Amino acid sequence: MTIRDVADYCGVSVSTVSRVLNERPDVSKEVRRKVLDAVRDLHYVPNNSARDLVRTSSESIGVVVRGAGNPFFTSLIRSIEETAEAAGYTIILAQIPSFADELATGASLSRSRRLKGLIFLGGCFDYNAEQVASLDVPFVCCTFTNSFGSLDIASYSSVSIDDREEAAKAVRHLIAKGHRRIAILLDNSTDHSIGELRYMGYCDALKEAGIEPDNDLVEEIGTYDMAAAYEGTKKLLKRTRDFTAIFVIADSLAIAVIKSLTDQGLKVPEDCSVIAIDGLETSLYTQPTLTTLVQPREVIGREAVRTLIGIMDGADGTKQIRLEASLREGGTAADLT
Amino acid sequence: MTIRDVADYCGVSVSTVSRVLNERPDVSKEVRRKVLDAVRDLHYVPNNSARDLVRTSSESIGVVVRGAGNPFFTSLIRSIEETAEAAGYTIILAQIPSFADELATGASLSRSRRLKGLIFLGGCFDYNAEQVASLDVPFVCCTFTNSFGSLDIASYSSVSIDDREEAAKAVRHLIAKGHRRIAILLDNSTDHSIGELRYMGYCDALKEAGIEPDNDLVEEIGTYDMAAAYEGTKKLLKRTRDFTAIFVIADSLAIAVIKSLTDQGLKVPEDCSVIAIDGLETSLYTQPTLTTLVQPREVIGREAVRTLIGIMDGADGTKQIRLEASLREGGTAADLT
Repeated sequence: MTIRDVADYCGVSVSTVSRVLNERPDVSKEVRRKVLDAVRDLHYVPNNSARDLVRTSSESIGVVVRGAGNPFFTSLIRSIEETAEAAGYTIILAQIPSFADELATGASLSRSRRLKGLIFLGGCFDYNAEQVASLDVPFVCCTFTNSFGSLDIASYSSVSIDDREEAAKAVRHLIAKGHRRIAILLDNSTDHSIGELRYMGYCDALKEAGIEPDNDLVEEIGTYDMAAAYEGTKKLLKRTRDFTAIFVIADSLAIAVIKSLTDQGLKVPEDCSVIAIDGLETSLYTQPTLTTLVQPREVIGREAVRTLIGIMDGADGTKQIRLEASLREGGTAADLT
Repeated sequence: MTIRDVADYCGVSVSTVSRVLNERPDVSKEVRRKVLDAVRDLHYVPNNSARDLVRTSSESIGVVVRGAGNPFFTSLIRSIEETAEAAGYTIILAQIPSFADELATGASLSRSRRLKGLIFLGGCFDYNAEQVASLDVPFVCCTFTNSFGSLDIASYSSVSIDDREEAAKAVRHLIAKGHRRIAILLDNSTDHSIGELRYMGYCDALKEAGIEPDNDLVEEIGTYDMAAAYEGTKKLLKRTRDFTAIFVIADSLAIAVIKSLTDQGLKVPEDCSVIAIDGLETSLYTQPTLTTLVQPREVIGREAVRTLIGIMDGADGTKQIRLEASLREGGTAADLT
């Protein structure tokens, strides 16, 4: 069974069948229907591999999303897709759980789909040269950097906020409002990842203000789970009530923290202020609205694609792009001054 | 450059190179490294199209997700992936915006990736036979049915809750608690989609209880947008305050409704009760916790895969599977009796 058989069967030219199979717009609805019916009736299997080969060899960018359930990534992926499509590239998306290996997934995807480049959305902060050597195409780390790794700065690209500095900004905002006993709720302070960076920023801001970090005020919950954030807040409150504010390292966790504080009889922000980083849509609807530092997600996605295309085209070298988060004043940070 | 050149270059057999390229586990780390280095040094491009052809011809199921930003789909996708992988199938995921055509995407994906079957996650409720004729593989409608379409019941499969009946259950719960003036906030009551089905269930429950539906209490916001739900609640309150409860057709919208009610000075549930359908994790953290009917998402995902595999294997025919939602009692439905 060849494409010629299909053409003969429905009385059209081979190129018409080809146009239908390639989803070209320049075919009438009736002809399209006739050809597709014939394809089905004859059980013709178009030689897509050859077609894919041609199409994807010059056009596809892979996006490996680690931690697929993360609501933070949704609009970012949309921005990546839009920018890539506007530039004529197709996006191949692979979603993997947070324990999975994004580099291995990327390397395998790149080989099997003939990618021109890769964007890693969420990944480890501590790659070494050997680990990234398995990648045979240019890549961009999106929303993370190599802060704890050993990569040569010229050997990779990244687009993200400065996690340490933005965490410091959040805590400085509380300090400016008169808070000095500030707790932190985070996943992990020593995991060489985003938690550790934001913990370092928290400590930076405290030290700048002459406040000694107090281990009693550090609540590590081990995961990004909302239920764990709810329980962690209870644990923190059982240990000490000697604080006026909590810096939570992510909006999704902060939603659970606010609920937990309220359920323990504390009023937000009168009895305890809350500030976070991310800027999710849902956190606009907490009671009161969460005060948070909003990551410029659309810009992060767009710049990741542009950086990658620049490298793929040979026009640019690797780049480290840091973008700024902006304060969204909600109602959860009380002014004590 | 052939696979033989790579094998010669690093002094191993062709089958070893093949095992490395196919990511088989039975290769030592050192050999894997050597082969991958050689592949890179020699710029060898493995003939993946042929490999993909073999692999995907018997193993891939496509999942087309319409309305990719919908948080409701996240754990459902995970359940689909787990069930499919346990059965030896690979999932190929395509995410499309809610205005896009899931059937065209599915048909094209099926041809280009040699799929054995398709699962549509979110889609139209009104297909006709001609529309689905473009699909050349078995398919399952997941989370939706053909309630408003003309498909022969034996020509398609679906796994979902009974949207109309579950909406009626939610409203009956309010009626049992003494509510009679019950508003509804929904996207659209005449769109031949989920909104219309849930609106019909709302009317069913009212009529059963001898309550005449009142158009003044119907707030249509046109989309699934949280901001629109927030504004819609304000509009409803401006029009009338003569109701004691709101049935909201989705958890995500209900989160915004609760916030809007509170911001307008109403206490939930003392001044106004709220009930919804879906059972998102986030809605556990509203103030108070949202009372809602939880869809059995894991089961829906699992049954969609099992139904599809049954058809693909020729063991089963098409199936219509309706699953029940279960009441999660939060604190937003007051008892007036």
